Amino acid sequence: MGQESALVQLKQIFIGRPIPSELAHHERLSKTTGLAVLSSDALSSVAYATEEVLRVLVLGGVAATALVTPISAVIAVLLVVVALSYRQTIMAYPAGGGAYIVAKENLGTMYGLVAAASLLVDYILTVAVSVAAGVAALTSAVPRLHDLRVELGLAFVLILMLGNLRGIRESGLIFAAPTYFFIVTLMVLVVVGAFRFFTGAVPPAPEAAVASGGAGVGALGAFLILRAFANGCTAMTGVEAVSNGVPAFKPPEAKNAASTLATMAVLAVTMFMGITLLAHAYHIMPVDNETVVSQLARAVFGGRGAPYYLVQVATMLILVLAANTAYADFPRLASIVARDRFLPRQFMNQGDRLAFSNGIVALSGVAAVLLLVFRGDTHALIPLYMIGVFVSFTLSQSGMVLKWKREATRGWQGHAIFNAVGALLSAIVLVVVAVTKFMEGAWVIVAIIPLLVIWARAVFHHYQKVAEQLSLEDYRPEDLRRNTVVVPVGGIHRAVVEALRYATTLSKDVRAVYVDIDPVATAHTRRAWEQWGQGVPLIVLESPYRSLMEPLLDYIEKVDDERPDDFVTVLLPEFVPRRWWHHLLHNQSALLIKAALLFKRHTVVTSVPFHLKA
Amino acid sequence: MGQESALVQLKQIFIGRPIPSELAHHERLSKTTGLAVLSSDALSSVAYATEEVLRVLVLGGVAATALVTPISAVIAVLLVVVALSYRQTIMAYPAGGGAYIVAKENLGTMYGLVAAASLLVDYILTVAVSVAAGVAALTSAVPRLHDLRVELGLAFVLILMLGNLRGIRESGLIFAAPTYFFIVTLMVLVVVGAFRFFTGAVPPAPEAAVASGGAGVGALGAFLILRAFANGCTAMTGVEAVSNGVPAFKPPEAKNAASTLATMAVLAVTMFMGITLLAHAYHIMPVDNETVVSQLARAVFGGRGAPYYLVQVATMLILVLAANTAYADFPRLASIVARDRFLPRQFMNQGDRLAFSNGIVALSGVAAVLLLVFRGDTHALIPLYMIGVFVSFTLSQSGMVLKWKREATRGWQGHAIFNAVGALLSAIVLVVVAVTKFMEGAWVIVAIIPLLVIWARAVFHHYQKVAEQLSLEDYRPEDLRRNTVVVPVGGIHRAVVEALRYATTLSKDVRAVYVDIDPVATAHTRRAWEQWGQGVPLIVLESPYRSLMEPLLDYIEKVDDERPDDFVTVLLPEFVPRRWWHHLLHNQSALLIKAALLFKRHTVVTSVPFHLKA
Repeated sequence: MGQESALVQLKQIFIGRPIPSELAHHERLSKTTGLAVLSSDALSSVAYATEEVLRVLVLGGVAATALVTPISAVIAVLLVVVALSYRQTIMAYPAGGGAYIVAKENLGTMYGLVAAASLLVDYILTVAVSVAAGVAALTSAVPRLHDLRVELGLAFVLILMLGNLRGIRESGLIFAAPTYFFIVTLMVLVVVGAFRFFTGAVPPAPEAAVASGGAGVGALGAFLILRAFANGCTAMTGVEAVSNGVPAFKPPEAKNAASTLATMAVLAVTMFMGITLLAHAYHIMPVDNETVVSQLARAVFGGRGAPYYLVQVATMLILVLAANTAYADFPRLASIVARDRFLPRQFMNQGDRLAFSNGIVALSGVAAVLLLVFRGDTHALIPLYMIGVFVSFTLSQSGMVLKWKREATRGWQGHAIFNAVGALLSAIVLVVVAVTKFMEGAWVIVAIIPLLVIWARAVFHHYQKVAEQLSLEDYRPEDLRRNTVVVPVGGIHRAVVEALRYATTLSKDVRAVYVDIDPVATAHTRRAWEQWGQGVPLIVLESPYRSLMEPLLDYIEKVDDERPDDFVTVLLPEFVPRRWWHHLLHNQSALLIKAALLFKRHTVVTSVPFHLKA
Repeated sequence: MGQESALVQLKQIFIGRPIPSELAHHERLSKTTGLAVLSSDALSSVAYATEEVLRVLVLGGVAATALVTPISAVIAVLLVVVALSYRQTIMAYPAGGGAYIVAKENLGTMYGLVAAASLLVDYILTVAVSVAAGVAALTSAVPRLHDLRVELGLAFVLILMLGNLRGIRESGLIFAAPTYFFIVTLMVLVVVGAFRFFTGAVPPAPEAAVASGGAGVGALGAFLILRAFANGCTAMTGVEAVSNGVPAFKPPEAKNAASTLATMAVLAVTMFMGITLLAHAYHIMPVDNETVVSQLARAVFGGRGAPYYLVQVATMLILVLAANTAYADFPRLASIVARDRFLPRQFMNQGDRLAFSNGIVALSGVAAVLLLVFRGDTHALIPLYMIGVFVSFTLSQSGMVLKWKREATRGWQGHAIFNAVGALLSAIVLVVVAVTKFMEGAWVIVAIIPLLVIWARAVFHHYQKVAEQLSLEDYRPEDLRRNTVVVPVGGIHRAVVEALRYATTLSKDVRAVYVDIDPVATAHTRRAWEQWGQGVPLIVLESPYRSLMEPLLDYIEKVDDERPDDFVTVLLPEFVPRRWWHHLLHNQSALLIKAALLFKRHTVVTSVPFHLKA
């Protein structure tokens, strides 16, 4: 028992004390904390969206980067439209309308599963991308950490995992602080940057940029512009978060959520456009070792002073916070999907935090693998990111259109048009992303989502078959009243005696079975049996082929045939050693016997533990 | 049961039918078959020993390779001395005198374990080296297979493993044929080669060799000569095989074995020196893609004709056969050592062929890893090979010296001197090998042997402690007469009903335990219980923290406290699915409960299988 309580202690240190049921829903979100908690994902993408556009445009020449402004403007408009579209979802689903629920209810289970698969993939990539971008903010400020970026990313994931296993939900403050810190520092950056630009303090573009300018724009292909646009659409990720979290708001929930969404959209558009315009005004070009935001902050604040470091710290913190939101979303969605039997029940929440722990560990594991494979490079991860996001956007908005149409309340057409525009634009972005990013890695996600759906259906099918087999309808239990206990023994010692004593409590019909492969040993065992046999008859089996297993299995078969209305219990002494590697030194034959009898009806194999002290 | 008989069938196909005890010892070896069976290891090393000497000498310049003859002559003398030394072992240990037994009996357990560890390592390397050399013989004849040598090596190991699991002991012929085939073709090669040399048919050495000649020998360091010598000592590996196999001979066993050993030594020396002298006479230089024997056969037989291919096939076959001897030796030694409790009992032979199968699989696995790591290169494996061989030689011969001295029969001094010379020379070779090959890989073996010995002692210590705890001396079994059966249920369905019915056969005191985390579900379960509860009382536990495990464990603790003289049996329904991955979808809580109760005294956790149809 010493080990057990140590386990409980360890669990409490890392995972935290269990939460009593009554306290689970005690904290409701105000608009202020709601914004902080639910918008970190959407706002944090501002930290890398402009850069992702520039990284593609620069391939068309320095002058082509001027297109960053119109492209970003289009994305900003899209963001507003999608946000308005989601506002409708909030109103229609005050109990929380994630894409899985909306799509399942309105488009059918299949689309629901596609949405769920997309979202689960999306959450994993939120962790990977946000952590990678957070590390980039850090290594931009402290360049000598650049070579450690993979290790730093893994460390962040580990901290997030342990923190979430421990349960970091004590206070809204931990979320509110970094979000508002980021909003304030970024706004200061934009305002100061704009002021210095308009007061003429910005140096003119470098010679090289001007020189190569003319040809660049002309040569830029439409495909490159679409690729740049697709990259920039990362700015739209996270817009859906508020609509998932409606029930967490203080009443009136839907109204509070809707106004939070509006604030978030305004902030995201302002910051995104601000950074984009300034990056262009300050002639910032993407480089490998420093983010665009870091370069911009250096340019605006005149080098690496305190204001610069504040921007970097704020950026890093909100990105880690954005990753953290996935740690709430992934286990929650997995739990909902598992309740519908489309995922293993290990993800289903049934008391404790075990199910959520499984989700947290799964999420961390896959995100860590992604960071390793893509060497912690935000830019390399982006092509994988957006497929899942825009599949779920499209399905969710399409589902809303059908919902309005089906319910046909007064003025439904107006609502439907909003959502239809949202769905259409999301679908267009999805196609653009899938086509332009396919070869860069999007194909992985395009392939994985259907595989996940197929697997989810196989899981469902299995659980359904099991439920049928477990059904009590028309069931009449077999009338098995007795139990023949067979104890295979290889000799006589304390563990055997203890197993025999246990056996005699189970049944009046206990038989010890010994396989004779050495007459001397057999004679010895027979003699010892008289003293130690606990009154159990010793049955000695011949083994012409010196096999231990076959005579035993034949005997069990014979017992079963003799007494078709009996259970047969095969009782094996099992050594429980103190050290893990000692397991390798014992119990092999017990495993073989269990494996051999696993599929035999009315046969139960039981291990009687014998606890070794060393 | 369908699956079980399929398992038995599969086992019979791959592993063969079990051998009745009476037939186990029916085949005794004549001198002719004895030579074939026991000498393949020793004779086959002729295929690469000369080349290994040349590969080092050539580093000192082409002319330095002239030293191959004197070095080989020294090795040949050593081989004869060691063989004579082993002849004494045969006479003294007619029951079979492997290095483990001789060292343990005469030098003590510790030295016995060092010998055993060395031999087990040696057997593994016999497989790796022989297979690598066999593949080299093949790829020399068919150069376009050269790039596939790792795959070919792994394929050979796989064939050897399956063949040995199947049991290839039907006939001595399978061993006799390749050995005599090799002896005959190699002798023909030597005789024809010598004839052509003496009749002046050999072209003079190439210009380059002559030109660089003068300086080469002089510049050659003593260290290089020692390295070359150490490499050549591979010719001595396998000399001990006959002394291990004495009891397998027809009576008079010792006499037949001794004369077989003498024949083998003569053949090995003749072939080794023949190839060495001819390689020198024919100006053969080691190259990467073709073995020395292959080059020599081409030179002697004038190109790749039938005689050339016969040599290559014979060489390949005897090398595979040599690898095969390790498949008999490794499991046998492991079984002997396991009987002394220094290895896990899984290696101990107790009927069936299971123990030998474990040995065969372990041997194949490690040998395959070596082939992979060393890219199937004989030359790279050689430095690892000889440490184990010469440690066991030295210990075995030293043990014999002490045996003669202890027994002090008439004329023991003469015997002792023979063995003392053998021991001394083996020890010298061991030191030379260890020093000159240390950095090339011998350090691995120098490190592994002590680690294996430490582990073997830990295993022994553990088994001894277990034996003490199992001893019936002064043992009085506790008087536990009753059994309280606790059945944790999460609801009511067929599997639960079947488990309850089984439970009622075990005890009059059965209690079903249900943890209340949802009042609606609890009420539902209570209602269904009236119809389906099988008369077992349903105990509903409160769970303020929504935990399932803790209330259950607390309850079991309480039952145990109430009835200190009872066993407590915790009965869990367990789903047995048809497909392996379905396991992931079930039984997680059963595992947790088992883990939590594993160390609890008088508590037995039993799974009642419920067989799923899909």
